[in-house]
Amino acid sequence: MRVVVDVMGGDHGCEVVIKGALQALQLNANIQELFLVGRQPEIEAALKKCGNKDSRVTVVHASEVLTMEDKPVEGLRHKKDCSILRAVDLLKEGRAEAMISPGNTGAVVAASTIRLRPLTEVDRPAIAAIIPAPKNQFVLLDAGANVECRPRHLAQYAIMGSVYSQKILGYANPRVGILSVGTEDVKGNELTLEAFKLCKQCPINFIGNVEGHDLFSNRVDVVVCDGFVGNIVLKTCESLATNLFAWLKSELMRNPVRTLGAWLARGAFGTIKKQLDPAEAGGAPLLGLNGNVMIAHGAADDRTIRNAIRAASEAVKHNINQSINQEIARASVEMEKNAAHVSS
Amino acid sequence: MRVVVDVMGGDHGCEVVIKGALQALQLNANIQELFLVGRQPEIEAALKKCGNKDSRVTVVHASEVLTMEDKPVEGLRHKKDCSILRAVDLLKEGRAEAMISPGNTGAVVAASTIRLRPLTEVDRPAIAAIIPAPKNQFVLLDAGANVECRPRHLAQYAIMGSVYSQKILGYANPRVGILSVGTEDVKGNELTLEAFKLCKQCPINFIGNVEGHDLFSNRVDVVVCDGFVGNIVLKTCESLATNLFAWLKSELMRNPVRTLGAWLARGAFGTIKKQLDPAEAGGAPLLGLNGNVMIAHGAADDRTIRNAIRAASEAVKHNINQSINQEIARASVEMEKNAAHVSS
Repeated sequence: MRVVVDVMGGDHGCEVVIKGALQALQLNANIQELFLVGRQPEIEAALKKCGNKDSRVTVVHASEVLTMEDKPVEGLRHKKDCSILRAVDLLKEGRAEAMISPGNTGAVVAASTIRLRPLTEVDRPAIAAIIPAPKNQFVLLDAGANVECRPRHLAQYAIMGSVYSQKILGYANPRVGILSVGTEDVKGNELTLEAFKLCKQCPINFIGNVEGHDLFSNRVDVVVCDGFVGNIVLKTCESLATNLFAWLKSELMRNPVRTLGAWLARGAFGTIKKQLDPAEAGGAPLLGLNGNVMIAHGAADDRTIRNAIRAASEAVKHNINQSINQEIARASVEMEKNAAHVSS
Repeated sequence: MRVVVDVMGGDHGCEVVIKGALQALQLNANIQELFLVGRQPEIEAALKKCGNKDSRVTVVHASEVLTMEDKPVEGLRHKKDCSILRAVDLLKEGRAEAMISPGNTGAVVAASTIRLRPLTEVDRPAIAAIIPAPKNQFVLLDAGANVECRPRHLAQYAIMGSVYSQKILGYANPRVGILSVGTEDVKGNELTLEAFKLCKQCPINFIGNVEGHDLFSNRVDVVVCDGFVGNIVLKTCESLATNLFAWLKSELMRNPVRTLGAWLARGAFGTIKKQLDPAEAGGAPLLGLNGNVMIAHGAADDRTIRNAIRAASEAVKHNINQSINQEIARASVEMEKNAAHVSS
């Protein structure tokens, strides 16, 4: 397998990204070639600093960098030699099977969609966030690729999430729900009400609507919504969890007795912290394209990148995109049959 | 002040609701009359059990109860003598100034909107959830009254939330933001992009778009969104916080050393638990109507009801609805001026 890493655009510079990529290389003998895309002098300096001697590394120069402040589509138009586009092009040209970027999410989505194109059966790609909960992990999609969605997009996301959670998370029969304001069929907005009807016809374990209350209580494995709602939910959860633990920490440090108590109980905090750590998932796959793209958190450290490469290589190994395309094609046939049955 | 409590429809029966209402009566000498609306025999049995001798209590019989399972509008149509309608009617007839219900939220919204009508300047009422964060409280609206909103509704919610947080939460200059997927003006969906333009013209401290990341880090005091997004965000936060603490508790109980640590540090957990407790706010006001309606949590205990009555009486004291109407009228004048300026 050949993997591309866009090493620019992360919050902490390219060195930490390269460090994580080299760790992944050491851990994974299946990687035949690792492309590091970005400003060549910076990459070579980092490789030297890391003492790299692995001959599987290939540096690909890209003179420009899209920052978090750049507007995605405009940025791509003006910075033709940016690392994101150069990295995506390696996938497009068939020189690699998977690509990881910690850069501007909007730009990664736009560049990947434009250059790689969606799968034949997919209208729009979706960002699938893997969210840790106390008793399971669930896939939330779309987490922000498309803010305005149509019902058929949501039905496709349902299938994409179902396939991903089966193949990558190992769920035998993932429970798929539409995120809404009530569990009854009639609750929701125009988009979810129509999507509900379509999801019922899909070859998935559709459990109907789910509410905010259901997300963290192990009632659903794949949560489907438009990218506006998904992005807000994802960021709200990250913010709430982070701020709750920071608050707890400050309360625990308020006096020596509490601090001693916290020290005795530190194993409990450690277990939860580890499981909630976004670095564990490494990143969120962009599903539905002709190519495996993984969006790593902008604040990615070396471990995040290492885990993102592991997740991306799993996606390659399991032919995720091919399975998604087949399943959506199968669903389309079912829906057409139903439509014919209704109209006849 | 005269207060109405719909004592039916809560998850734990009418007794606990009545108990909370009587506590509020004892604490608040300003309450001249307390109407308890519901099935008379049950109310009288509960009053007897509580040993009530307060002559300010008036029982109003309503033979029917709308449950959480009833569809709001249908339920109201079929159960004309339900406690929610009887309670709202006491407001409508001017026999009381504030009403509290722990019943079916959709039915309380529908009954209040139909019988009391929105304020002259308001198109749609909104549920304003008061959400505790580590360093502030913020108002999220709409938390579920209207799943489909138009830009002008969001602008009205911005003003409603601003007035409420000034008068009731005591914020001198509340920061008002639109919940979106990025802080830049150009980020969002059709609804928020248009609402952004309107909010800029309102006489409020509009700070622009806010993201999920901003909610719990003391960057915003009033968060505006449609009722679909608001309901999902509210319930997701409740679920995440509850499940995180349950998870932490189970980890802390895993061995005696951790349990001892937790016991030593119990003050820290207590402080946070108290501040996060939904019973503290008592409920969410339904803003924008000709009347003060407070929706208490369905799982309300006596303390919740007591606090909901306190919050409702604050709303009465500060003439919340009159202030909202005045501020929205003022904003409309401004917007018309701007429109005239643009077209001239």
